[in-house]
Formats: sequence, C-alpha cells, structure tokens
Amino acid sequence: MRLSQLLLVTLREDPADAELPSHKLLVRAGYIRRVGNGIYAYLPFMWRVLQKVSQIVREEMNRSGAQECLLPQLQPADLWRESGRWETYTKAEGIMFALRDRQDRDLGLGPTHEEVITALARDLIRSYRQLPLHLYQIQTKFRDEIRPRFGLMRGREFIMKDGYSFHADAASLDQTYNLMYQTYSRILQRCGLEFRAVEADSGAIGGSKSHEFMVLAEAGEDEVLFSEDGQYAANSEKAVSVPPKAQPSPFTAVETVETPDCSTLEALCESLNCSATQVLKTVLYGASFENDRQVLVLVGLRGDQTVNEVKLVNALTARAPRYDATALISLSPLESEAAQALLKPDCPLGYIAPDLSDKWINNQPHLEPAFLRLLDETAVPLQGFVAGANQLGQHRVGLRWGNPMVQPQEVVDVRQAQAGDRAVHDPSQRLRTARGIEIGHIFQLGRKYSQAMGATYTSEQGKEEALVMGCYGVGVSRLAQAAVEQSYDDQGIIWPVALAPYQAIVVIPNLKDAQQVAVADQIYHDLNQAGIETLLDDRQERAGVKFKDADLLGIPYRVVTGRAVAQGEVEVVIRASGESVQIAIDQILPTLRQWIARALAGPDR
Amino acid sequence: MRLSQLLLVTLREDPADAELPSHKLLVRAGYIRRVGNGIYAYLPFMWRVLQKVSQIVREEMNRSGAQECLLPQLQPADLWRESGRWETYTKAEGIMFALRDRQDRDLGLGPTHEEVITALARDLIRSYRQLPLHLYQIQTKFRDEIRPRFGLMRGREFIMKDGYSFHADAASLDQTYNLMYQTYSRILQRCGLEFRAVEADSGAIGGSKSHEFMVLAEAGEDEVLFSEDGQYAANSEKAVSVPPKAQPSPFTAVETVETPDCSTLEALCESLNCSATQVLKTVLYGASFENDRQVLVLVGLRGDQTVNEVKLVNALTARAPRYDATALISLSPLESEAAQALLKPDCPLGYIAPDLSDKWINNQPHLEPAFLRLLDETAVPLQGFVAGANQLGQHRVGLRWGNPMVQPQEVVDVRQAQAGDRAVHDPSQRLRTARGIEIGHIFQLGRKYSQAMGATYTSEQGKEEALVMGCYGVGVSRLAQAAVEQSYDDQGIIWPVALAPYQAIVVIPNLKDAQQVAVADQIYHDLNQAGIETLLDDRQERAGVKFKDADLLGIPYRVVTGRAVAQGEVEVVIRASGESVQIAIDQILPTLRQWIARALAGPDR
Repeated sequence: MRLSQLLLVTLREDPADAELPSHKLLVRAGYIRRVGNGIYAYLPFMWRVLQKVSQIVREEMNRSGAQECLLPQLQPADLWRESGRWETYTKAEGIMFALRDRQDRDLGLGPTHEEVITALARDLIRSYRQLPLHLYQIQTKFRDEIRPRFGLMRGREFIMKDGYSFHADAASLDQTYNLMYQTYSRILQRCGLEFRAVEADSGAIGGSKSHEFMVLAEAGEDEVLFSEDGQYAANSEKAVSVPPKAQPSPFTAVETVETPDCSTLEALCESLNCSATQVLKTVLYGASFENDRQVLVLVGLRGDQTVNEVKLVNALTARAPRYDATALISLSPLESEAAQALLKPDCPLGYIAPDLSDKWINNQPHLEPAFLRLLDETAVPLQGFVAGANQLGQHRVGLRWGNPMVQPQEVVDVRQAQAGDRAVHDPSQRLRTARGIEIGHIFQLGRKYSQAMGATYTSEQGKEEALVMGCYGVGVSRLAQAAVEQSYDDQGIIWPVALAPYQAIVVIPNLKDAQQVAVADQIYHDLNQAGIETLLDDRQERAGVKFKDADLLGIPYRVVTGRAVAQGEVEVVIRASGESVQIAIDQILPTLRQWIARALAGPDR
Repeated sequence: MRLSQLLLVTLREDPADAELPSHKLLVRAGYIRRVGNGIYAYLPFMWRVLQKVSQIVREEMNRSGAQECLLPQLQPADLWRESGRWETYTKAEGIMFALRDRQDRDLGLGPTHEEVITALARDLIRSYRQLPLHLYQIQTKFRDEIRPRFGLMRGREFIMKDGYSFHADAASLDQTYNLMYQTYSRILQRCGLEFRAVEADSGAIGGSKSHEFMVLAEAGEDEVLFSEDGQYAANSEKAVSVPPKAQPSPFTAVETVETPDCSTLEALCESLNCSATQVLKTVLYGASFENDRQVLVLVGLRGDQTVNEVKLVNALTARAPRYDATALISLSPLESEAAQALLKPDCPLGYIAPDLSDKWINNQPHLEPAFLRLLDETAVPLQGFVAGANQLGQHRVGLRWGNPMVQPQEVVDVRQAQAGDRAVHDPSQRLRTARGIEIGHIFQLGRKYSQAMGATYTSEQGKEEALVMGCYGVGVSRLAQAAVEQSYDDQGIIWPVALAPYQAIVVIPNLKDAQQVAVADQIYHDLNQAGIETLLDDRQERAGVKFKDADLLGIPYRVVTGRAVAQGEVEVVIRASGESVQIAIDQILPTLRQWIARALAGPDR
C-alpha cells in the first residue's frame, strides 16, 4: 500500500496515561487509540498485526485437530448460576460486566466461556464415540477491571483465543493438555518471541493442573522462578522450593522471657541474639466469604519466610465449605485499624502465637468465634523455637511442638518461594527469577463444570459419566503488545518479522528525482507481487521524517532508493540490528525473500 | 476433514421456536445452537460459512480502497450524549444494551459505530490531504430486540461489516457511495445470491440518501417495489409512485349532506355514489416526543390511498424542533380507547376533516392544544371533493381548497406506494412487488455526526469545515441465513458454492468394501490437495443416513464411491439440481474443479 493513502498518524509526544514503553509506542506509532477507560480502537496497522497473531494461532490450533467456532458474548446469567460463578464474577470479584435486558433478564458479558461451552456440550455430546472433542474461538472478551492500564495489557475489552476440550477420562485430557503445551510453544516460537512455560495457579477458573506461557520482558507484571537446568519453572505465585536451612536453636529449655519493644522480627532477633530461622512467626489475616461469614486466620511460618497470599487464598477457598461458603471474596492482613475492630482491645498484636486464645475475638454478627489456625510446612520441623507469649512484651523460647505448644494440625504450603532458594527436583539447583507477561494459560479443569452443570456422556460400558474438561487461552491483543514490550529501542518498535504489519517499506528520499521514484515503484510492485507485504512511503515529507516514521512503525526492512540508484543500487536498513547494506536493485527481491524465510522459519515446518 | 472427527449433530425434528425454514434448517443441520433468547452459538460448520462471507466482504472492501480496523464494542455513553442519541437508543427505542461499570460510568454495547468513528476522526483527521478516508470493521454487534426471532435474522448478537467514510465535500462522498453500491453488488454476486438494490429510508441512522440491498426470498420481512424496466426499485417504506387517476367529481356545489352510518369509506362512497378518489380522507394520529410532549396529528389524503407510517414518522421527526424535541418515540393511529382519552367525548370521529377544530382536544398536561395538520400530496389536486363535516352523520361535498376549506399549508409525501401504481420515472411502467431480506444498507450521512461532535478538517482554503460522512453496513450472519432462505428444498440446505462450508463430500456407502474405502480416501486426499474443501463421511452409519446428512448439510457436490468403483467410476450428485452423473475416477478432480470455477466466477474477475 502507498502510505499516502493509508491512515497513519504518528505522535511526537508520549500519551499522558501510558506507563509501559510498549503502550507509549503503540499510541505514538498510530497503532491504537484510546476510546474510553481501558477501551481501545485497533487502527489499520494494528489490525494487520492482530490478524497475523490470530492466523498463527488458528493454523496451529487447526493442526492440533481443534475445531473453530464462535460462541456468544452475551451470556445468560442462568448458566453462571448453574456453575455457581454468577455471584463471584459479578459481585464478589466483580470482573464480569452484568446487564439487564428489556425482559428484565440478567446477562453477563463473557470474560470466559466455560459455562456456555459446557451447556453446549451437555446438548451436543451423547456418547464416548464423540470424544475427545476440542472447540476453540478467537473473540473479543470483557473484564470490568478496577484499574485498567498498560494499554492492551490490562484492558476492559481484549481479543482472546479460548479453547475447551472434552474427554472420557483423565488420560485423554492429559494427551490434549500436552498437545496444547506443544501447540502454545509452537505459536510463540512462530511469533518470534522469547518465552517460558511455567507452572501456574489455576485461580478463579479452577481445576487441578495449569501452566502459563510467559513472554519475557523487563516490565512484565509477573515474576517467574526457574531452575538453571530448565527443568523447573513456575509463576512465583505458585512456585515451590527448598527453604534455606534453619540455624540450630540455642534455646534448650522452655522459658518465658521479657521482650519489650520487640513487636518486629528484627528487634526480637537482636534482643534474643537468635536467627529469624529459629522464630515461629504468626501472621493474622481477616477473610470474608461470599455468604458474608468472616473468619480470622492465624498463619504460623518460619520467621525468615513470607506468606504467598495466592497460596493462602487457595488454602482458604478449599476450606470454604466448613463455613457453608463456596468462594472467598476478600483476604487482608490484619494491620489496618478497621481490621483490628475485629479483635478485643489490648489484644497483644506483635506478640501472638498460633495458640492465641479465641477469647480475643470480638463478639460480632457474621464473625466466626474461633480462629482458623494454619501452619506453613516450614514451621513443622522447628525445635526449641521462639514464639510470642500472647502477652504484650513477652516471648517464649525453647518451644517444641506438643506441650506447651499444641501439635500442628493443619499444615499447608503458603510460603513464598524466592530467587536463591534451592529447587525441589534437584537441591543442587538454585532458583532464578525473571519477569514475564502472561499471554497463555492452559488448565486441566477435570469435572468441575460438567458435574455442576450435568454435562455427561454415555461411556463404552453404557454408564452415564461427567465429561472431563480442559481449557486453553491465548491473549491475542496482549501478545501483540507483549511482542513490542520485548522488542523496541529509542527509535520505536522492532516487530518480529512474523507479526510486523508490513515486512518491508520502500522509502523515496527525494520525490523530485524521477529515477528514485521509478526504481521505488518497481521494487514496491515486485515485492508485493512476490507476496512480500510492502509499503511505499510516497508522502510529500522530508527523508528524515520518513526514516523516523519507518523506525517508529518498526517495519523489519527499509529499502531506500537514494542517490545510489544511479549506480544500480539501493540501501536496505535492517530494523532489528540497525545494519545498513547496499544491494543491487535486481538482488532486492531474492535477498529479502531469503531473509524473511529465515526469520519465519518456525519449529520443524 | 473426516466427518468421524468433526462435531456434527443433526436433528430429525424442527426446533420448537423456529418459524422460518432457514432457521429450522440451520438448527437441524447442526450449524447453530440457541444459547439464550436471540443468542446463538455458531458451531464449526457455521463458522466456516461465516468466514467465507467475511472473506468475500473483506476482499471487496479492500479492493475498494477501504482500510480494515477494529473498534471497541463497549462504547462510553458520553460519545452518544454528544451525538444526542444516548436517550433515544437506550430509552426511547431501547435497542442499545446499556450497562454501568465499577466506576459507575455508563457504557453502551455497540449496535453501530457512528459515534466512536466520529470521535476517532476528530482526533486523527486534520487536513484535507488525509481525505477521503474509509475505515471498516467486521464485528459482533448487539441489539436489545424486544422480540428476537427468525434465528440469526433478528438476533440480539450478530456479525456485521460496518464501514464509515470521511470526505471534504458531497461530490467525494457521492463517489465513495457509488463505489460502495458497486462493491455491495459485487459481494452479493460473488456470494451467489439473487438480490435487488433499492432506495431506502434512512431510519435512526439519519442522513439524506440511502440504499438497501435485499436478498430476494419469499419469507423476507421487507416488501420491495420495482419497475419492470429495472430503472426503479425501493423499499415499500420509501417507495414513491404516480397514484392512479382520480375520477372527476360529480359534485359542483358546496353542500352539507346527511350521511348517517357512513363512518367508513366504503359506506360513504356507496351512500354518495362516488369514487374513493373523490374523497378527502382524514386520519388522526397521536405522537409522543422524547421530551414527553404529545401532539395530535391530522393527516389528509385521497380516499383510495393509505398512510405510509415510516414516511409519516420522518415528517414528524423533521418537525420535532417546533416542540423543542429531537426524536419521536411513538406514533399510533387514534383508534384505541386509550388514545381517544386525548379527545373530548362526542368528538365526531369518522366524520372529521383536516379543518377539525382544536376545541376537541382535551386539556391535559404535555398535550399540545392544537392539531398538527398535514396533507398528503394526493390531496392537493382534488377539486369538488367530499370530506367530513366535523359533525356526526354529516359530510360536505363539492369542496375546493380555499374557502370554505383552508388552503393546504403543510404538504408532505406520506402515501404508501403500491404494486400496480405507475412509476415516477416513466409512467408507462407499472410497479411490481417482491419480498426481500435486507442484508446491506448504505447511507449518506452528510455532516449530521461531524457537526454534532465537532469533527472538522482544514480545507485546501485553510478553513475549518465539518467532515462529510457516509456509512455502509452488511449483515454477515444475516446474509448467511438469507442464503439458506433463498435456497433450500425438502431435503435441506442448498448452499451456493461460494458459501458452502465444504464444497464436496465423499461418501463411502459400504465401509466393509476395501476398494470403496481406498478410492474414497484417494479422492478425498486428491481434492483437498487441489484446494477443493472436501469432507469424507467415514462414519459407521448406513448409506441412507449419510446421504440424508449430506443433503441436509447442503454440500454442493456429493461423490459416492459405490459399487461402480469396480468399473473405475463413481457417482456425483449435484445438490442444487439433484442430478446424478457417473464419472471416471480420474476425471473427478478436473470435473469438480471446472464446476466450482464456473460457480465461483464472479463479476469480471
């Protein structure tokens, strides 16, 4: 296309609301425009990029045997009530936009499609002969983010590929899950991105096993922990590790000691001249369930460790049934004054231990009268340890599990793994950290939705069984921005060849030079004819402006028909390396063809 | 693809909620499934059809120079308040789904994108040098239909191509408008559909000139009037014609005559022994504006003619400003008891004329104290005509405009053109009628949105001018169903080759015959290899079931590898004609290739 006929409006200034480089660049280079809070228009150049991402996703999904379909964005609330997620998604977490139609019926705007697809499967799948079945779609999704930001990274409207598979048993699910792991890896390789697949928390989607696909970038929202041998990688929300060794305790006998002004761990260790690894730290949380019941949680863990709140949320959600609840809707450390209102005045905060008496809990409607007491695994092997005496200004030392401290009853893993920890699979390996942008997530859902919604099939043995399910998502618009976040410089975007809106741009420095124009026209025509998507910058602008725009846009190859055309040569500038090469005019096509083929060479294609 | 691996669930029974044949067939053949009221899932076969429609639309739009983009579905209410359509669309007409986000801001779910695109144009377009500019998108749209029905025809969620063009002047708009007229015609030709482009009413979108593209089908919701010479075609909502000649009046002198029991036209004509063309009929309407003001409308027209309410709505909307209003929200003939409450008791209904005194209007809040009096063009040339005497049981005869009847002041065209009327462009031509399904609509919007929203550009003369706009829509999902409505039989769907999900299906009647299987596999492989999208029905089903499913699905060419394979031949059944041909196995590929090429031959391609 001729640039004079395309909508291209570049900006010199960064947009005021943009924090991430990729967000700034996509706006400045005219790829996207903000229409509302967290709502963007994809302008023609961006749309080309998104179509390229979609096409790669589509080809790899089809290759895996999945079938493309399109499910509705408007979703009847009744389906979400069947799965039990309506309240959580529209009220508790509030991430689903809800609306009411003219018949006064509730509808949600799909953030995800487990309910719709399970209802369809219930209708369409009768027999094991139809299994396995894998349907996917590429579609705009919606999330009512409290604080939309980072451009397309955390928008309220975004494009996703989501797929759902149905199986007779766990082995078949495993097979498709592994195939999706490979498919996602191929997709990212073909997009030309550096990425890491990591073990992940399943979050609100539920299910047992899940992996995230992280595009590596310094500004990534997620932290990834990985072992140097590449055998282990996990989202830090989910990661496990071997904690550092605890110091042997210097306290042999049980004693209560005076520890004034020792409500912080640092002060305590200094005062007692001990290591944090010898201290049993107790952290107090307030948790609320969707049925308004509240519980106070005492978490004990080794003093040098910190609580991973994602793991803690999971531990509490698993215990929701004992409070007649299904979903946790808030969790916060009891530090604020508001939270302290849940405790009686003079509760010895800073000096508490997991055996803190229930008598400190205020008598309040909805508030459970007893603490939920959880111990992190790191607390169990402690011997002769230090803990609060449940009295202001006093600690106990030389404690052991058993008297005088009760036996640990509910042991959980709620500890934050950290860079430098040893890996579980091989303690000689240390964990390292990297930052990433989550662009894919695969889940083993099991029977969670099929059981709740009665989606069954008749097995080979003639039995009615609940379908086993998996689900698999790729953030298409997010991936496009992540590609920019991974690859840019001071001049602008550096698109991977596979995602660039156009692969080449022909720039005429001097429109008054007829030979420059003729050569540019010819090259432009020949490249497009050969299937190389090529722009012609025929605008009435100074050469410098054109070069700047080409760099800002991030087109991989810039062909400049400068003065050297008189000698039968043009200049080609490679965006990624900045390298400039003089090439004979008749060699442009074969050269670019070869470079592009090399750049696009995906995994065993 | 092998049918054994695809999701295909056909039904023997028609779905209970389906009225149209196309709706029944799409459900029965497993193309769509209902998820909620007016909300459908597009299953894999349907998705292929929709992608084909989209691809044809995309290719023809790109050929016209329009650029594809994607605009948000969530639209900030503020943009709609700027254009003045928020209240009309969410309250008065109520067709836009509205919702409120967590920041308590109003959002609409886009039924159309004039506001969003005009806001973008305001931001992006500075100079005449950027004009003309034409952006389009293919996207799911939403309408909160009061009574969703007919499957994809009148759903609440549907796929559309909508495009918006921006111009410096009306001549440039005309050029793009005409190009779109051709582009839409090409799209429909390439889809293999019988259609008619007709003059149309602009409706809620506004603007001056518009055409609809109608796919002809007996069950179409719209009536089209067209002249036999093809020079004129219009939606009957908009159509104009030469009314039949009026009879000369037998009444020469003005007289009041007793006409008891003559409140109907038939009784009156019989009683006076005159023609309906000699009578001035007066119809009373009640109209409400969005600001709650109500007005009673007296419409006078020739007795043999009927009021076209779409034209009347337009006439009233144009007069809204005199009631400080912008939009009409209801219009109904004053027949119901509720409506009569607006008039004083004993108002001589059935005997009224356009000069009925305002004294009959009830004194009520919001109700205008004076009638709005409109005369249809057919009433003006009447001479010596009959009209009510505004007294029960009395008519006046021999009337002329002027005393005693006031001069016609507001003459409008609110008459319904009818089949059999003479054409305006050539009165020797009669109008005929056909039924159609509207699948495309093009509009000249002019400066309606750009003025309201301040979208301007700097002209060549350095002046700030409002952009001139056009907009152009194709119902993608609607078109797919309209294709079925135009082409089916007792056995199922008959897809045009261009839209069929697969072009051919290879059926193995007897899976136990190794030669049948081998030949089928080879043909299936060869056809797909050659780019002919081919299914293989390898299911463990009786041959009859397979034939029935192939017919129901509507695949254009069915290749049956029956017993004749032993003689080196297979049977090909052409779905559209039902014709069956024996073809040598090695001639299958060249034959199908030729048939398909012929079927796909579009306009001058």
